[in-house]
Amino acid sequence: MSEVRDRPIGVFDSGIGGLTVLRALRRALPGEAFLYLGDTARVPYGTKSPATVTRYALEAADEFSARGIKALVVACNTASSLAQTALVDLARFPVFGVVEAGARAAVAATRVNRVGVIGTRSTVDSGAYVRTLEALSPGIEVHARACPLLVPLAEEGWEETDVARQVCEHYLADLGAARVDTLILGCTHYPLLERAIAAAMGPEVRLVDSAEETAREVARAMRVERLGRRLPPSAPIRFLVTDAPTTFVRVGTRLLGEPIADVESIELEHRLDLTDGELRARVS
Amino acid sequence: MSEVRDRPIGVFDSGIGGLTVLRALRRALPGEAFLYLGDTARVPYGTKSPATVTRYALEAADEFSARGIKALVVACNTASSLAQTALVDLARFPVFGVVEAGARAAVAATRVNRVGVIGTRSTVDSGAYVRTLEALSPGIEVHARACPLLVPLAEEGWEETDVARQVCEHYLADLGAARVDTLILGCTHYPLLERAIAAAMGPEVRLVDSAEETAREVARAMRVERLGRRLPPSAPIRFLVTDAPTTFVRVGTRLLGEPIADVESIELEHRLDLTDGELRARVS
Repeated sequence: MSEVRDRPIGVFDSGIGGLTVLRALRRALPGEAFLYLGDTARVPYGTKSPATVTRYALEAADEFSARGIKALVVACNTASSLAQTALVDLARFPVFGVVEAGARAAVAATRVNRVGVIGTRSTVDSGAYVRTLEALSPGIEVHARACPLLVPLAEEGWEETDVARQVCEHYLADLGAARVDTLILGCTHYPLLERAIAAAMGPEVRLVDSAEETAREVARAMRVERLGRRLPPSAPIRFLVTDAPTTFVRVGTRLLGEPIADVESIELEHRLDLTDGELRARVS
Repeated sequence: MSEVRDRPIGVFDSGIGGLTVLRALRRALPGEAFLYLGDTARVPYGTKSPATVTRYALEAADEFSARGIKALVVACNTASSLAQTALVDLARFPVFGVVEAGARAAVAATRVNRVGVIGTRSTVDSGAYVRTLEALSPGIEVHARACPLLVPLAEEGWEETDVARQVCEHYLADLGAARVDTLILGCTHYPLLERAIAAAMGPEVRLVDSAEETAREVARAMRVERLGRRLPPSAPIRFLVTDAPTTFVRVGTRLLGEPIADVESIELEHRLDLTDGELRARVS
């Protein structure tokens, strides 16, 4: 088996959205190799129950273990919200989640101690951002809002349309009224809509991009733990998907900002034999 | 085993959208019992590959076989587009699909032989409506358009907003320019947006609701085949879902128009052991 520091960093997402996190990781860690797993057959996680999302995340972690990685980045906000505890319990590698990184950056950024969070229905309903923010900064005021239309808007490529601006205004009016000064983009797709979101919130509100924050934390940890790769990566990124790769390659190239090659289709369903009761007990 | 005609009619959908079809079936066949299966853990099918959707549909059919039904209604347009052939091959009960019913109604309705179809990405990419319409009426001109934002718009309850009207205008401009006189609503959620769609298309265009047409065909077949139920149904509708039932019950009640009780969570994954090659060969 290869030396630990020369293994790739695993990046896990429910589908293609996590490619925005991989893009940030590539910029922060240009000498590393990455193994990206997109669970495209079971996307989206945002509408599924906590036990189901936890099972999917553990199945993915099992796949990463079998292939050998030195660290895991959970790029999917829903999985990071619901399955972080279960992953940390089971994994034999460090696990970085976008929720913790985004929450830490927001706490550092807010001047008035009022923070907004937007995400999918499951991410918001899980309360993970609220819990993490309150643990980091007791007394912080958090306003969370589910925005289910933003992912399909971004996937349609409608970021710069009037529709996108109207949808953002509709979703964000309450957060504006609550006078938050910092807004966490709690979904991997939302940075694509940054301009429409910024227009709706106004110039005083700082937007926290969890992808950038996560990349920064992973780069710091690689330095501190002396886990940086020494060999040049022969194939810098490999991709695993659970459905046919066609859409992944077509839409993903835009999100990643570089060509996608080396895609392998794998099967995750029923890798692990856990009952619903066991899974519910592991939900974050 | 009960006599065939006293068994329930199975209704299969990827999630909750098929409840609009069940609602139409309940109106057309008030004396029947129904067994509804919503594959809520794996919804949506509209973004998944043909082989994956076919596998899911066959797993559902296997579940229906085990429980005993007298006919199967495929309420999901994506499954009806991709898996109709595979289902008819395997099932030992008649299979009714929304695609065939919608196509037949559109052919009967059009005066200028120009028909539009809107649906999910997978339904449109499958070409199933185009093929079925051309088989029924050679020389017919078909214009198809994928409208991925309409399902989340309907699920958000934004049917009557400016956003819904703008999105419909954006999607339907080309169909208007092509001067179709009939438009098939090729997705179970779209009847909820009927007003916004009608406003975008203008009053001369007839909208075909596949749910209504399917219910009419099933009712006719039950009469012709003498399959009408003779016993009074003790529990008229039972529901099977593959994820936790919470959202299904909450959102579903609005789609069905009556309370949802008697929901059972089941597991479909890996019921059948078919290779991807076998599945691709069975795609419609």
